[in-house]
Amino acid sequence: MQNGEITIRVRYAETDRMGFLHHANHLVFFEMGRIELLRQMNISYKDLEDAGQFLVLRNIAVKYKAPAYYDDILTLKTITVRATPFRLDHRYELLRDGQLVAEGDTTLVCVDRQGQVQQMPESFNIT
Amino acid sequence: MQNGEITIRVRYAETDRMGFLHHANHLVFFEMGRIELLRQMNISYKDLEDAGQFLVLRNIAVKYKAPAYYDDILTLKTITVRATPFRLDHRYELLRDGQLVAEGDTTLVCVDRQGQVQQMPESFNIT
Amino acid sequence: MQNGEITIRVRYAETDRMGFLHHANHLVFFEMGRIELLRQMNISYKDLEDAGQFLVLRNIAVKYKAPAYYDDILTLKTITVRATPFRLDHRYELLRDGQLVAEGDTTLVCVDRQGQVQQMPESFNIT
Amino acid sequence: MQNGEITIRVRYAETDRMGFLHHANHLVFFEMGRIELLRQMNISYKDLEDAGQFLVLRNIAVKYKAPAYYDDILTLKTITVRATPFRLDHRYELLRDGQLVAEGDTTLVCVDRQGQVQQMPESFNIT
Repeated sequence: MQNGEITIRVRYAETDRMGFLHHANHLVFFEMGRIELLRQMNISYKDLEDAGQFLVLRNIAVKYKAPAYYDDILTLKTITVRATPFRLDHRYELLRDGQLVAEGDTTLVCVDRQGQVQQMPESFNIT
Repeated sequence: MQNGEITIRVRYAETDRMGFLHHANHLVFFEMGRIELLRQMNISYKDLEDAGQFLVLRNIAVKYKAPAYYDDILTLKTITVRATPFRLDHRYELLRDGQLVAEGDTTLVCVDRQGQVQQMPESFNIT
Repeated sequence: MQNGEITIRVRYAETDRMGFLHHANHLVFFEMGRIELLRQMNISYKDLEDAGQFLVLRNIAVKYKAPAYYDDILTLKTITVRATPFRLDHRYELLRDGQLVAEGDTTLVCVDRQGQVQQMPESFNIT
Repeated sequence: MQNGEITIRVRYAETDRMGFLHHANHLVFFEMGRIELLRQMNISYKDLEDAGQFLVLRNIAVKYKAPAYYDDILTLKTITVRATPFRLDHRYELLRDGQLVAEGDTTLVCVDRQGQVQQMPESFNIT
């Protein structure tokens, strides 16, 4: 499992009356980071789901360090910190001009269409 | 087909940096109005979908009359203006203290799992 | 500081292609829980902001226990676990028919218009 | 006033239980199209707002032609159809592989901090 980096511009609709990127959107960004990390490994998350392999979130933790604002161009680093056949842990760093806006951690498991936990997809090459 | 009325409080996450209810949320509210109108007729839209009958939007038009703000308590009136076996037209009035915030119009059609247009569900009692 | 309970029905727009309540919405619900807890104490969060007192999130942690689905009626319990002049910690339990869907924890601080940390509002009666 | 084109990938969080891009997101995309059109003219909408010039939506109309799906790469064409000192009309075409997913129309007016209608910003060069 690798690490990745994407760039996201804060949309108007993602701001709130405080003028900040609303704090729930960080989770949407982290999800984008995970998915692009897979794509970088030539894995389409859409194809995984269509094949009945769903990555679902078990835990998420976010530390908000600084506000992000409308139109900001943010860099999101997604780091694989642990990969076992039954668990995938990522760390996220959301930055603007090198300054940390937020950091996060997630744990994913893989489930089938019935919601039963199964091993991570073979294409993840976790041994 | 009947008319209905629901009350919605504007959530913090629905505001934008202008301090207004962001204009895309009006569509989410109209959707809630349509669904509650069905519920009032003892029809669960969830059950319809689970039975393979999906109401999909063909057209929407919104006129924004006044801003709505965080924590506002809004009244949404949903009015059935036309019901044929292949088309359902609603009108919406979103109000705060009797003042019109927005008005809208939608046209829905019914499709099956393959996206083929079909007749409206029997429970709609459209003749 | 007290504890509170609100009821939330899952909106169609809050679901995702997995058919679940998308995991970012839990944060929106927790925010609603905190705000209703204040209202129950006769404090309007809107008035606080208009007076230049902003409650901002420092940390959030969520454990996802079970999926929630479209049209589910969820109960959100918001519990004040720690209140000091410079920090407010809440715990959340999101339930459906008594079953735990998710639990969460947040830490809030109070900032002024310039983003400087200040004491919690007097109306919170924290000593 | 010019025309512009942007590319948007459908996010997981933007889908609904039907598996489609939820219909409210089209409005968010149109907003992005308008803003990028301004940027292409070297106008930052953020700077306009910071100078007290707010573009607000008066009307929107959308025709939904075909579903868009998770992970789709969409092209959004934004066309200026009418520009007067007090009104700005855009047309939108949202496409996937040349196929029309949706088309839309909006009317914007410019207001000041008090919500009073004013002339469009000088930088728009409308005569």
